[in-house]
Amino acid sequence: MIIVTRIGVTDEEIDQIRERVEALGLRTHISKGETHTVIGCIGDEELLEHAPLQAIPGVESVHPVMKPFKLAAREFAAQPTRIPLGGVELGAKEVVVIAGPCSVEGEQMILDTARAVSAMGARGLRGGAYKPRSSPYSFDGMGLEGLELLARARETSGLPIVTEVMDTRQVEQVAGHADVLQIGARNMQNFALLTEVGRVQRPVLLKRGMSATIKDLLLAAEYIMKQGNTHVILCERGIRTFETATRNTFDLAAIPVLKKETHLPVVADPSHAGGRTDLVIPLAAAAIAAGADGLLVEVHPRPIEAVSDGEQSLTFEQFDEMMAALRPVAQAVGRGLASGAPG
Amino acid sequence: MIIVTRIGVTDEEIDQIRERVEALGLRTHISKGETHTVIGCIGDEELLEHAPLQAIPGVESVHPVMKPFKLAAREFAAQPTRIPLGGVELGAKEVVVIAGPCSVEGEQMILDTARAVSAMGARGLRGGAYKPRSSPYSFDGMGLEGLELLARARETSGLPIVTEVMDTRQVEQVAGHADVLQIGARNMQNFALLTEVGRVQRPVLLKRGMSATIKDLLLAAEYIMKQGNTHVILCERGIRTFETATRNTFDLAAIPVLKKETHLPVVADPSHAGGRTDLVIPLAAAAIAAGADGLLVEVHPRPIEAVSDGEQSLTFEQFDEMMAALRPVAQAVGRGLASGAPG
Amino acid sequence: MIIVTRIGVTDEEIDQIRERVEALGLRTHISKGETHTVIGCIGDEELLEHAPLQAIPGVESVHPVMKPFKLAAREFAAQPTRIPLGGVELGAKEVVVIAGPCSVEGEQMILDTARAVSAMGARGLRGGAYKPRSSPYSFDGMGLEGLELLARARETSGLPIVTEVMDTRQVEQVAGHADVLQIGARNMQNFALLTEVGRVQRPVLLKRGMSATIKDLLLAAEYIMKQGNTHVILCERGIRTFETATRNTFDLAAIPVLKKETHLPVVADPSHAGGRTDLVIPLAAAAIAAGADGLLVEVHPRPIEAVSDGEQSLTFEQFDEMMAALRPVAQAVGRGLASGAPG
Amino acid sequence: MIIVTRIGVTDEEIDQIRERVEALGLRTHISKGETHTVIGCIGDEELLEHAPLQAIPGVESVHPVMKPFKLAAREFAAQPTRIPLGGVELGAKEVVVIAGPCSVEGEQMILDTARAVSAMGARGLRGGAYKPRSSPYSFDGMGLEGLELLARARETSGLPIVTEVMDTRQVEQVAGHADVLQIGARNMQNFALLTEVGRVQRPVLLKRGMSATIKDLLLAAEYIMKQGNTHVILCERGIRTFETATRNTFDLAAIPVLKKETHLPVVADPSHAGGRTDLVIPLAAAAIAAGADGLLVEVHPRPIEAVSDGEQSLTFEQFDEMMAALRPVAQAVGRGLASGAPG
Repeated sequence: MIIVTRIGVTDEEIDQIRERVEALGLRTHISKGETHTVIGCIGDEELLEHAPLQAIPGVESVHPVMKPFKLAAREFAAQPTRIPLGGVELGAKEVVVIAGPCSVEGEQMILDTARAVSAMGARGLRGGAYKPRSSPYSFDGMGLEGLELLARARETSGLPIVTEVMDTRQVEQVAGHADVLQIGARNMQNFALLTEVGRVQRPVLLKRGMSATIKDLLLAAEYIMKQGNTHVILCERGIRTFETATRNTFDLAAIPVLKKETHLPVVADPSHAGGRTDLVIPLAAAAIAAGADGLLVEVHPRPIEAVSDGEQSLTFEQFDEMMAALRPVAQAVGRGLASGAPG
Repeated sequence: MIIVTRIGVTDEEIDQIRERVEALGLRTHISKGETHTVIGCIGDEELLEHAPLQAIPGVESVHPVMKPFKLAAREFAAQPTRIPLGGVELGAKEVVVIAGPCSVEGEQMILDTARAVSAMGARGLRGGAYKPRSSPYSFDGMGLEGLELLARARETSGLPIVTEVMDTRQVEQVAGHADVLQIGARNMQNFALLTEVGRVQRPVLLKRGMSATIKDLLLAAEYIMKQGNTHVILCERGIRTFETATRNTFDLAAIPVLKKETHLPVVADPSHAGGRTDLVIPLAAAAIAAGADGLLVEVHPRPIEAVSDGEQSLTFEQFDEMMAALRPVAQAVGRGLASGAPG
Repeated sequence: MIIVTRIGVTDEEIDQIRERVEALGLRTHISKGETHTVIGCIGDEELLEHAPLQAIPGVESVHPVMKPFKLAAREFAAQPTRIPLGGVELGAKEVVVIAGPCSVEGEQMILDTARAVSAMGARGLRGGAYKPRSSPYSFDGMGLEGLELLARARETSGLPIVTEVMDTRQVEQVAGHADVLQIGARNMQNFALLTEVGRVQRPVLLKRGMSATIKDLLLAAEYIMKQGNTHVILCERGIRTFETATRNTFDLAAIPVLKKETHLPVVADPSHAGGRTDLVIPLAAAAIAAGADGLLVEVHPRPIEAVSDGEQSLTFEQFDEMMAALRPVAQAVGRGLASGAPG
Repeated sequence: MIIVTRIGVTDEEIDQIRERVEALGLRTHISKGETHTVIGCIGDEELLEHAPLQAIPGVESVHPVMKPFKLAAREFAAQPTRIPLGGVELGAKEVVVIAGPCSVEGEQMILDTARAVSAMGARGLRGGAYKPRSSPYSFDGMGLEGLELLARARETSGLPIVTEVMDTRQVEQVAGHADVLQIGARNMQNFALLTEVGRVQRPVLLKRGMSATIKDLLLAAEYIMKQGNTHVILCERGIRTFETATRNTFDLAAIPVLKKETHLPVVADPSHAGGRTDLVIPLAAAAIAAGADGLLVEVHPRPIEAVSDGEQSLTFEQFDEMMAALRPVAQAVGRGLASGAPG
């Protein structure tokens, strides 16, 4: 931590700042410039976490030197983390595509979708049983019945299941049916939920919140990892900005930034990022070109009849077209699409 | 709902759109313009809620006509909602100030603060027992012990208690100690939690999420109200934008917009909005001038030693100065500060 | 400037950084922490302005210590700057209201408006002769004829004229007719134009750009002042965010932040900030409560027939109502509305 | 244009709305729903451009049906526009890379850079002679001397020149030296400048403003085209959001959205979008994967010594590495890098 003082700071004020920092257990190092004095704080920066140094008279600005996350940081792991998913690994050389409907709507549609996307190269099945919806009047999922249908879809397709958990009280139930627990964008800072999924033995797919910085996302991952569950998959799905041509603004640069900052795998969700069927392929291709380890894509047998997210879901044909388009792109960046026979 | 078709739409496409809308239970009204055909959908717009009309071939844009919230809408209530809080009412003529520390840190500090702010005119005591923190390494509150200290502070000061609940499993416990349950900005779209606080008989203070639109905030209120709890207090506390001079960007205009859109009381949190002690008074004065029904203000006996939010907390002296500054402003807009003897 | 090095920086890298900084004319001060080394740069920070220190191997982050603006900084002037406008002063104790139509549309309407707003207490007349419009198909002003009508309106009403200049080639002409040159939000970083208005002897009303930070706004003012024209009035008019309920997001906190950072007067434009007639009064009241030195308000004889901004313009009656509402608010914060007889 | 009325609108209000629209030259079509009445306006929507329909009593919302741009719209041109640049075409099958320093700093460096990037596959040379800088204390370019050095670099390398014009008074001079006139992000809504470059016979590279929507960008292009110059190249270079890990937020989705909306070529600037050397390659690859027709990339002989943008400039070696990385990506999406011998 570096503390810069105001122009005209008094010696008494500098002493007070120094004493406060030292009382918290760090050493200080004073360096007087022409107009400002700089106080370096040497030692464990965490000890200053709670201290409102900004509130001490004479302080102009405070500059943290250390990153606020540890377990998620690149430096923490010797190797990139690889997370097994069915017969493949997320975070390895090959790009893993996870596909399926926004919501589980019934048995036939989820089984059909699972079989179709599996045949076309998906290595995971997504589908919501519990759905967060902005309006209390919208369909909010089939609940337990949806989870059971997902489990059945796994049996017939061999695809591991990725599904959302929204409530601390559901964690055990969802973990009992799913292979990967998804934390949605609106719950990215639901710290009670992060803590709870940190205690189970299931990988967690953590979606970036609409107003979360990359640092916030890594701190949310840190919450989960601190409980012992280090299998966290980070997902860029667009942030909220002034642009309205797309549902969200896909922050493509977050992918290479995250790959630098952390050892965790990074996936992208081109369906939510753009919110439009016609944007899924270009956004998916761009994500792979920028280094994404995987994709989360919405597919529905008949998007026009989907109870949610129909305007951004691919048909089976479109999904097949997407996979064909992505294969050469993945190869162009030295990777490939994961194709190991599922589970 | 109004559907606008693309230039060059075919009659078959128009028929398909019409059939889809009618199959969902509405009537249609076709109006051909010079380049676009417009299809009005007459009937209950909710029936279209799940329908991805945008995904039907030939559709260019879809324009909802009805507001998506009902119970929270201005039109729903004949009168503005007044919510009793101790001896006063939120949403009535007088402006209610709720003050206290970010976190309950111990018995002495919370009792001292409660007595001080009560003597200076606060009509509610805020203080966190469960604290959402971006970093898992930050202090996250005293929990149940904090709740008990708040209850003790109520006894000695007479001030009703406003405190945050973060987890569906805590709702009963927090409701057993507090007078108002606070939903924090990061949980504004934690729909499981909204549903749960909608089932208890305690007013809910709902903070606007950092990336929530005004419509999102009203839909979150609708979640709570739909469960039966209509005592929701809306709180503007700043949104996240590109500006970094302040912690958040205080969306002052949200106050008069909300007062138009809803019958619910609206309060402002100038402490979080600005994130700086020196901005609390001007932001608080502006909020009252713009029509806020109340304020939520952070006060701490010694901000320099606060374990959280010290840089935005007022000392007792500063709080007293703020109350003196606000009284004439409240009178200038035909109101006044609520001054009924507490409890 | 403080340079923080990466974990694992080598001594050679530190030497290279030090040499580069010293080659630029500053002295360095090295301080080794437990994980990071901090290099303080002592001397004229401007000498580092051009240097991409971030690009030197081993550098993790660079923290400027000095503010990038000088002439605009609070510390530069012993007293707040007061700018004469007709018979009153902007930046003095009393709040100055400047009112008028978005565009000059004809002789009768501008003369009528000038007389009406003058009688109701406005101390300046706004009105566009050159209009920036997002679409090339929109009305873009009456040009020179509009300037002449504004000059005539000044004669009959006594109100000084505030009008926009959009092109370096127009500066002389506009300065020949107007009392204050307005730089619109879209031109806030049109540096050629800033330089040009810095060379004339007319106050400049500088509107904040839609994506400009407070620092950017002050740097834009610095451009003007550096040419010798120190009479710059800063105007908060809303920034662009994700919220769509209002035309822009009124950054109310910018007002007290600017009053701290600079000696220049600060005004607010509640018409553009909200974009809605019904929000003008609450936003104007809030601006005054937060410390604004003046207001810029759109008024039109018949807003329904206005060629631009009709949806945010006040009628004469509404303007009168606004002035009545603002007087007690200005008094409540120890000020008042400027009422000296114009001109 | 579709007008939706408020709940409880009176027949008199509907009549007034209808009369107003008809007085402006359109026909109306009234359709009564269960709660709202919808008024369709049939005819030339441009006639309503100036009309503040929102201000008419009884109006709740107004929905434009037609796109506000015409010449730039996809429908306007039978084929995508191809703009000749040296021996290649922007907007054709092959992706065109334009490279060079942020600023022209001297003869040797610009000649060296031109030769190097030409040899490595660039098909255009970028370099600023007039530089927009946020601070008036920063280096603002070599001016005319810089333009002459660029012309000399064209002679030796064969590369056409892309350089910025910032002032209406410079247009003729810059057009006399450069092959493509660049409009910078800060001038995207400098309408006087757009009009002026619309009158010369040089292609214009129009950079998206930091707070400009995609619609705003297309309207800015429309300004230029309306003057007769239809050779406009659109450039995505990042928008301003709350994320601070990157200099701007690269709105990757703008590329495929623009390719749908307009016939104009679309390029990306990965240097400004990310603001970091280490992000240039992934962002460039993603832009091509998403459909960009070209790239604008900053290259400098010695970025550490660059007078501007050194932290985001590639060395010659890094540029060569980038070109090698991009070739397979361009092929993967069915294109290739333009390689025709320059000029």
